[in-house]
Amino acid sequence: MTVMWRHQVHAGLVLFFAFWSLADGGKLLVVPQDGSHWLSMRMVLEKLWEKGHEIVAVVPDAALFLKSSQSFTIKTYSVPYTQEFVDRSYQEMGEKTMELTLSVLLRNISEMTSMFSSACRHLLSDKELMKYLQDSKFDAIMMDPVLPCGPILAEYLSLPSVYFMRGLPCTLDYKATQSPSPVSYVPRTFSSASDHMTFPERVKNFLIGLSEPLLCHLFYLNYRNLASEFLQRDVTMQELFSQASVLLMRYDFVFEYPRPIMPNMVYIGGINCQQKKPLSEEFEAMVNASGEHGIVVFSLGSMVSEIPMKKAMEIAEGLGTIPQTVFWRYTGKAPPNLPKNVKLVKWLPQNDLLAHPKTRAFITHGGSHGVYEGICNAVPMVLMPLFGDQMDNAKRVESRGAGLTLNILEMTSNDISTALKAVINDKKYKENIQRLSDLHLDRPIHPLDLAVHWVEFVMRHKGAPHLRPAAHDLNWVQYHSLDVIAFLAAVALLTLFISFKCCLYCCRRCFCKKGRMGKPTKAKSH
Amino acid sequence: MTVMWRHQVHAGLVLFFAFWSLADGGKLLVVPQDGSHWLSMRMVLEKLWEKGHEIVAVVPDAALFLKSSQSFTIKTYSVPYTQEFVDRSYQEMGEKTMELTLSVLLRNISEMTSMFSSACRHLLSDKELMKYLQDSKFDAIMMDPVLPCGPILAEYLSLPSVYFMRGLPCTLDYKATQSPSPVSYVPRTFSSASDHMTFPERVKNFLIGLSEPLLCHLFYLNYRNLASEFLQRDVTMQELFSQASVLLMRYDFVFEYPRPIMPNMVYIGGINCQQKKPLSEEFEAMVNASGEHGIVVFSLGSMVSEIPMKKAMEIAEGLGTIPQTVFWRYTGKAPPNLPKNVKLVKWLPQNDLLAHPKTRAFITHGGSHGVYEGICNAVPMVLMPLFGDQMDNAKRVESRGAGLTLNILEMTSNDISTALKAVINDKKYKENIQRLSDLHLDRPIHPLDLAVHWVEFVMRHKGAPHLRPAAHDLNWVQYHSLDVIAFLAAVALLTLFISFKCCLYCCRRCFCKKGRMGKPTKAKSH
Repeated sequence: MTVMWRHQVHAGLVLFFAFWSLADGGKLLVVPQDGSHWLSMRMVLEKLWEKGHEIVAVVPDAALFLKSSQSFTIKTYSVPYTQEFVDRSYQEMGEKTMELTLSVLLRNISEMTSMFSSACRHLLSDKELMKYLQDSKFDAIMMDPVLPCGPILAEYLSLPSVYFMRGLPCTLDYKATQSPSPVSYVPRTFSSASDHMTFPERVKNFLIGLSEPLLCHLFYLNYRNLASEFLQRDVTMQELFSQASVLLMRYDFVFEYPRPIMPNMVYIGGINCQQKKPLSEEFEAMVNASGEHGIVVFSLGSMVSEIPMKKAMEIAEGLGTIPQTVFWRYTGKAPPNLPKNVKLVKWLPQNDLLAHPKTRAFITHGGSHGVYEGICNAVPMVLMPLFGDQMDNAKRVESRGAGLTLNILEMTSNDISTALKAVINDKKYKENIQRLSDLHLDRPIHPLDLAVHWVEFVMRHKGAPHLRPAAHDLNWVQYHSLDVIAFLAAVALLTLFISFKCCLYCCRRCFCKKGRMGKPTKAKSH
Repeated sequence: MTVMWRHQVHAGLVLFFAFWSLADGGKLLVVPQDGSHWLSMRMVLEKLWEKGHEIVAVVPDAALFLKSSQSFTIKTYSVPYTQEFVDRSYQEMGEKTMELTLSVLLRNISEMTSMFSSACRHLLSDKELMKYLQDSKFDAIMMDPVLPCGPILAEYLSLPSVYFMRGLPCTLDYKATQSPSPVSYVPRTFSSASDHMTFPERVKNFLIGLSEPLLCHLFYLNYRNLASEFLQRDVTMQELFSQASVLLMRYDFVFEYPRPIMPNMVYIGGINCQQKKPLSEEFEAMVNASGEHGIVVFSLGSMVSEIPMKKAMEIAEGLGTIPQTVFWRYTGKAPPNLPKNVKLVKWLPQNDLLAHPKTRAFITHGGSHGVYEGICNAVPMVLMPLFGDQMDNAKRVESRGAGLTLNILEMTSNDISTALKAVINDKKYKENIQRLSDLHLDRPIHPLDLAVHWVEFVMRHKGAPHLRPAAHDLNWVQYHSLDVIAFLAAVALLTLFISFKCCLYCCRRCFCKKGRMGKPTKAKSH
């Protein structure tokens, strides 16, 4: 035991000295992404602030969640749209997603995308702010890179960067880090496939993989032009993203399918599962009133709280068929057919409700934060994915037998009822989510501590160049050894050719000799 | 702060409950590998024993380091060679390695290999021991898989397994875990290349990669036959090794070159660097007597303590040219030209000496344990690799600018002197090893705790199937999507062919019509 104690004291001392070097104030620049992504990133920043680091976040002056904070400095930059526009865009998101008119949906997405890219352009053109950022001598930059304003800024300020993310479109995160992603078992974004694919699914996945470079090009075209203009040289998005020192991935392999990864990828899934806080008296009373049947928690995420009335009525009808009390986060007009067992609430303490022993099921849009709260608390799920990675998330939960997915556009009240009854009454769903939960929670260090460690690591060491694979210094031909293969093939062919020529020469000599020797013999015989 | 505290209490509770499930006694079977490999594995087992687990190790009754232990049960099996034979084999290892007669060296290697494989055969044929192992209901098996007796036993007993290892011949560890290893920047074993290769080095690496399946086949032929015979079905080594639940890799990416990895690989480099213990009075006095010049630590590892006299004299002459006091671990006859500054010792507290502030350099054979002690304590190295992975280890240290490599067969006393003076006096070596040391020691959890966590994880959950990639269920054609490519090519060709035929048909129709319409016109015109 003395040895153990000593060992621990030693480990403690090592960490103490490591932290000490930044104790007088590491300085971190943060480029967050508005929306639900921000909520878990904020937890890491708050912990870093508690540890004594100075944090500066740059945010647009019109935003959904990016507001002032006690824990860190907020630097705002002006954007060419109003707070009302932002609020309306997010508010309409849910409604529009559920309307079958693709044109409306595409217009909404395109509006949001150009909103973000114009915000980025305004940030980069804010000369005063840029000067302040250059003068501030940050140790590192932390960002949500899904829209690449952060990577452009990191490159401009020559700062080592930490990404905090769920994923990038067209597998660009794995491409940029040089992590191989065999298309035969690594399902592509939007393929809605699991890692065990049938032949047609593999064909589909292959074709999606094939189209990824084009998709990426189109998706990031605005940003590529912006980056090249701002950095005054031609840059590709892959090149920009490849500069990341450490990538904090907001998932783990309890949820995601196992696949090749790189040493600078750190998996922090479940970082948002906070400790169960006691419920407010109001909620506690409502939960207890549910009796032996317990409750169901229903939320379509922090960004969608209203849906079209027709859909709301369909859902309400479905929810009325189960004996459980349903807490539904919903800010719109109450559907007229709302059954007695459904309580509409403008906000709910999602994680704390899920952690309650009376909770039987979780109806979710399948956002990664919600899914992880479901996993942490071992609550079987009914998933109604809306957009982004939610279809893929739902597939992952469903393929593990821990939930059922409904198509929100096509589902009937009957489908909702059947799915809910299944996940509540069929024990296998609870057993599967319990198994996932046990695996997920059995980890050597909490994901929040892990994330904080790696941000501090990058700040302390000005990056993590020792984790950068040499593949970044090879071109496509070299990486795939095509030049080596061509060289060896040439050598082999040349050797064959020379051997053949030698043989031919020898044969001819022999033949000629025989010929010469034969003729006189013949002549003699005549 | 309250939130933090709560969060920590929560994390603590989660771990407590996770550990609690095994608190009444997890049962671990251990199949160790004799030699230096055993020394770091023993540390993990001792910590597991301290945590209340029951540990049973199966060892041959004639061995170098595998002896009885207070911490765990040792089950011996008889082997067809004596303790004297084992002692002599190891003793001769150093001498024979340094003789240029390849035949003697090969004979020694072949002797050792057949010693181990015959031990394995004896273990597997020990019916009484096998019955005991089957009846004992272990939770998991932990092994050093470099020689695959453990994997065969794991398969036979259907136990989830944890590997504790530095690496397998012919990159079989990465092949068996389905981790891609691009030959263009992942140097192969014995290539002595870094990750940044010139074209000729890439050609060499490619050819080594190409020959690996054959090398593997030859190296493991005995074991493959043994496994197929014992398990009564045809098994390949790759199939056996692919069953590992978790692989504890005794290195990290401060030392190894960054490359694609898999989620079930856990990197625990530096696990053997123990806390600095105070030196014994004898050593402390000798170190202090070295004055301002300090000391040099010289050891060729736990398995080699004697070398041929000619080589010893050469080395002694070289060591005499530096002002530092050299502690040389050497059990052979002292060379007659031994300089005054060289102290021969039969044993030395290597890590504690390396941790002493007066230590200026470390002369090592480049075994992974020694190299990590050099890195932990930031001591620049002169490497004299002998066999196995030591050449590759030396290349890794040298390519980081933290040491210099000497060819032990060809080096002169002058080479030794020059190399030593360089690493001691040229500041860049100290700076580089200090940087490596800082990076290596800045980790979120001590490697020993990490290793213990993952062994317990496998015991608690009876394996880690959620970390097993779907690639294991694909054949070679499917994995590389060759069937999909062939299908798509066939579809493309068919489409082309049909389009072409349609065009041809249309053209003909047009042409014929024109022809038919033309003729009467012509006729009319006549």
